[in-house]
Amino acid sequence: MEIKEGPFLRQINSPDDLKKFDVEDLPQIANELREYIIDIVSKKGGHFGASLGVVELTVALHYVFNTPTDQLVWDVGHQAYGHKILTGRKNVFHTNRKYGGISGFPKRKESKYDAMGVGHSSTSISAALGMSVANRYKGNNDTQHIAVIGDGAMTAGLAFEGLNHGGVANTNMIVVLNDNCMSIDPNVGALKEYLTDISTSPTYNRVKDEVWNLLGKISKFGPNAQEIVARVENGIKHTLLKQSNYFESLNWRYFGPIDGHDAVHVAKVLQDMKDIPGPKILHCLTKKGKGYKPAEDGSTTTWHAPGLFNKDTGEIVKVIPKGPQAPNFQDVFGYTIIELAEKNDKIMGITPAMPTGCSLKYMMEAMPDRAFDVGIAEQHAVTFSAGLATQGLVPFCNIYSSFMQRAFDSVVHDVAIQNLHVVFCLDRGGLVGADGPTHHGAYDIAFMRCIPNMVVASPLNEEEMRNMMYTMQLDKNAAPYSLRYPRGAGVMPEWRKPMKEMKIGTGQRIRNGNDVAILTFGPIGNLATDACNTLEAEGISAAHYDMRFAKPIDEVMLHEVFTKFKKIITVEDGCIQGGIGSAILEFMGDHGYTSTVNRLGIPDRLVEHGSQAELYRECEYDAQAMVETAKKLMSKPARSMAG
Amino acid sequence: MEIKEGPFLRQINSPDDLKKFDVEDLPQIANELREYIIDIVSKKGGHFGASLGVVELTVALHYVFNTPTDQLVWDVGHQAYGHKILTGRKNVFHTNRKYGGISGFPKRKESKYDAMGVGHSSTSISAALGMSVANRYKGNNDTQHIAVIGDGAMTAGLAFEGLNHGGVANTNMIVVLNDNCMSIDPNVGALKEYLTDISTSPTYNRVKDEVWNLLGKISKFGPNAQEIVARVENGIKHTLLKQSNYFESLNWRYFGPIDGHDAVHVAKVLQDMKDIPGPKILHCLTKKGKGYKPAEDGSTTTWHAPGLFNKDTGEIVKVIPKGPQAPNFQDVFGYTIIELAEKNDKIMGITPAMPTGCSLKYMMEAMPDRAFDVGIAEQHAVTFSAGLATQGLVPFCNIYSSFMQRAFDSVVHDVAIQNLHVVFCLDRGGLVGADGPTHHGAYDIAFMRCIPNMVVASPLNEEEMRNMMYTMQLDKNAAPYSLRYPRGAGVMPEWRKPMKEMKIGTGQRIRNGNDVAILTFGPIGNLATDACNTLEAEGISAAHYDMRFAKPIDEVMLHEVFTKFKKIITVEDGCIQGGIGSAILEFMGDHGYTSTVNRLGIPDRLVEHGSQAELYRECEYDAQAMVETAKKLMSKPARSMAG
Repeated sequence: MEIKEGPFLRQINSPDDLKKFDVEDLPQIANELREYIIDIVSKKGGHFGASLGVVELTVALHYVFNTPTDQLVWDVGHQAYGHKILTGRKNVFHTNRKYGGISGFPKRKESKYDAMGVGHSSTSISAALGMSVANRYKGNNDTQHIAVIGDGAMTAGLAFEGLNHGGVANTNMIVVLNDNCMSIDPNVGALKEYLTDISTSPTYNRVKDEVWNLLGKISKFGPNAQEIVARVENGIKHTLLKQSNYFESLNWRYFGPIDGHDAVHVAKVLQDMKDIPGPKILHCLTKKGKGYKPAEDGSTTTWHAPGLFNKDTGEIVKVIPKGPQAPNFQDVFGYTIIELAEKNDKIMGITPAMPTGCSLKYMMEAMPDRAFDVGIAEQHAVTFSAGLATQGLVPFCNIYSSFMQRAFDSVVHDVAIQNLHVVFCLDRGGLVGADGPTHHGAYDIAFMRCIPNMVVASPLNEEEMRNMMYTMQLDKNAAPYSLRYPRGAGVMPEWRKPMKEMKIGTGQRIRNGNDVAILTFGPIGNLATDACNTLEAEGISAAHYDMRFAKPIDEVMLHEVFTKFKKIITVEDGCIQGGIGSAILEFMGDHGYTSTVNRLGIPDRLVEHGSQAELYRECEYDAQAMVETAKKLMSKPARSMAG
Repeated sequence: MEIKEGPFLRQINSPDDLKKFDVEDLPQIANELREYIIDIVSKKGGHFGASLGVVELTVALHYVFNTPTDQLVWDVGHQAYGHKILTGRKNVFHTNRKYGGISGFPKRKESKYDAMGVGHSSTSISAALGMSVANRYKGNNDTQHIAVIGDGAMTAGLAFEGLNHGGVANTNMIVVLNDNCMSIDPNVGALKEYLTDISTSPTYNRVKDEVWNLLGKISKFGPNAQEIVARVENGIKHTLLKQSNYFESLNWRYFGPIDGHDAVHVAKVLQDMKDIPGPKILHCLTKKGKGYKPAEDGSTTTWHAPGLFNKDTGEIVKVIPKGPQAPNFQDVFGYTIIELAEKNDKIMGITPAMPTGCSLKYMMEAMPDRAFDVGIAEQHAVTFSAGLATQGLVPFCNIYSSFMQRAFDSVVHDVAIQNLHVVFCLDRGGLVGADGPTHHGAYDIAFMRCIPNMVVASPLNEEEMRNMMYTMQLDKNAAPYSLRYPRGAGVMPEWRKPMKEMKIGTGQRIRNGNDVAILTFGPIGNLATDACNTLEAEGISAAHYDMRFAKPIDEVMLHEVFTKFKKIITVEDGCIQGGIGSAILEFMGDHGYTSTVNRLGIPDRLVEHGSQAELYRECEYDAQAMVETAKKLMSKPARSMAG
């Protein structure tokens, strides 16, 4: 792929190269960087709007600060493409998010310029604060620590906790608030309203204006009035500056708002701020997708990660499906909850900042008083759901599996211990693909299964998903649920089947067999069909069981399995330590069975990014791996009493 | 036990009884309630200072609001003793925190007046907000929703998330900020500084004062000056009130601060606030231990939960030990980290608001630049530690096991994925006793074991604890660690042994045997000594192995165990689903062994409060249970090939 670089960008392979230019050249460099990102992302895919929104900021930061000695922490990190290109990764940037290529997020192993590995939001202030305290302790008083964080990420509790500590730690910290009024979806909440408010009229300016407006009204007091007011104004200015502001109330010096697309001005302000000791906030106003007209004019959510597109026309490349397509599980959730909510007025929908990603947006449009985007605030989403449930409602709280890690205590403490009727829909359970290790939903089976009262389920397909959702909202089944399903498409083009109740804690036999049993949990089980067919062709008779529930586990079915089979394979799209394979071993141990059990699933190491299929292969739980495991089991002698 | 009730309190068994009194009687009722609490807690133990600090608030809240229809949510809940006494639990209050008695915290199963079960901090705003949204949806527009939250709890991210949503939800919500400048230890952070600031001089009053002070200086401008300034002041008042305040910036109407010990005034203000729609904060200044002079004058931390004391003299009852005592594991941690830090200048200590509870206070005193209380902010404590570690330091981050649930994502995302050298010291791992199900550290073995890169350890005794801490801080062993130990005393009066490195991932055989092997993890293993002795006396030869590491698990030792023993018992002070017993089953499955394994540990249900010994018994993993399990195993025939 040939990508043209602009004449300035061509000379830049490191921040040192960048620093050779005049500050007046920064706008041109930013433009060239933007073009480079547009060129590559349009042809290779990836996150888009966020990085375009911060090219000026990126250029200014690396121009002013002495990276990598100064510690630059990008929050979330999907906006760091410009940073990667400027810090030695221009020539490999086309491998972004591909299997074996560079990560779509900052990553410590990838570059010394990536001060912190990220992916989840709102960690940057705490991490940079830790760095700043460490460097002060080591006597490095000149080192600067910069956290670049969006207004969306600022709504998470962790960001507040970092501000609360940082305000009294008194270290070299600069928070750059990249305020574009967006998470992936539009940002929500009181802080966002507040930021909008001060963006359009900063407090100080507002007070000043009001005071001066009053002058007109009090001119009858004579020529001294203006001087008097000026004195009064100065008298209160200090108090105002100290207390008039969310950030100032937490003891951070607040600067701004300034235009985040004016690279020269941003650089000059940052240069000045370096000399001011203590915790400081620079409030920059930016626009996601800035500088690419289709993104500026179109839906910001669409252009967050648009896939491939024609750079010249702005037309997003649509893959024309051959024949009828199975829906994404996300849409199965999004449409099914509306169907259920139309009949059960107790059902409510909650998402922390992922209405588009998880498809709750349909319900938010159809039933705005019953579906809530609470912002990036997973803990609150769960505890808020608990509050709804105490009043007899049935909240469906949809959170990505890896983000649910942030609400684990709320699940235990506010839902499970209270035994409340909350249905957690864990989207993106299992390996997610290109987003990589920070986003893989690897641990939820293990961390949900250990919680008392929790029912842990995963559907084989769309029909089972709908039946599970139907079952879980029934009054008589009131309990906490964890319903996990993966990112991406199911297998049933005709998925809108009538829903029916299923018995909680029951699995099903999908296929009979005699030699080996394959026990699967969730949609990964669809790969077992191929595996069984392949094995049959090779003379091995494999049975397939769909577990459906990791907890309570189907003991009746497992007695059948363990009585009949001496060779068993368990398959899950989750970590094998503590997952459903372990649950099955616990059953085996408790009941004195002695079959050989091979557990397939995510191994006990970090799995990098790549397509889901590539990663299932690498981790050896795809159809091929099931076949190979079965053949290996068949080639072994019957199990002896000792290993 | 005979407890005298005051003449008013004697007539009160429910909020309805309370409402029959005149508002002027509230101070007397509060005094009687306070005396009642002092009487019982001095003789029976329990939390103390917090409940004394809110008796007036408690009386006023139940006087003004229509509980239980109005939803009253106590944050944390250790301050809710007055609430319990006023809501029908006066006669059972002496059973508080005892096995089989009432809970020390609000609990939904216990009373319809306990709108939400609590124990952990900072959940009240989100929970009450959920309730308020539910009731608005159901058309119950008169129902009030009150969250009573301390200034310490307000520092946690979850509280901020609740405020951020509540500020735009526009429901009937009142947050009562119970500001006593304390967590269990003194509160810290910028928000605390800010609250102190507005407490002593509310913004509006401060600005007003400053403006009027200016009058003196500008009097030369003539007689009109005062009038001009008054006009200016009125002009800016609106802006100030709207923006001058942390809470107002999040769109909550702020009232106060008021004296939280003036029951009549509090009641009147709350009555007025009922009529104001939307989200509101009432800032009450209170004093922990108020009304009991020894607590008011003494250390607030000491009087948080002082144990038994002589009510008249304020003397805390000290149990005189017979002979030398083993230290608490907390102090082993607290003193050992100083020993290590004196030799290794990379070591730092971090606690989220538990410096006394976890004994980091010793290091905070000895090395104030190297030990940090970051407030109630577990996520931040972990991510801040990660930031320290990126700069080459070795943070020991001490968090109670059940509170670590709140930082699970930070552990995964910011420490384990980055593979940083952070030592998590999980205090109060296992059943904690009187605090009950919200505080039991039941799940950490399971939720830590599933994380890649994480080493999961627990010491048998003080010496092993010290050796583990020594080992984990060595540069060559850089990795993320989870070192868990229980609440309470160890077994070694002479515990300050020289420290030595141990090999990570190795257990040890404590005792030889032939019939059955008992594999234990952590200090619960000390009970196995008794069990083995008892068994030996009954002719059963039991071996005892101390696992020490749940991950990496000692495969060499396990091969020895499974080769030699057909009957194995695993014992852990943690949940048996996914814990170390499951890890051992995974080993057995992976290596084709067929022994019978009985797992002892916390069962898959909520365990209520009681002493640790009572609960070990109930859950059947004490010495007696080990003996009975071994005998049951011995009485069974050798395991057959099918169940």
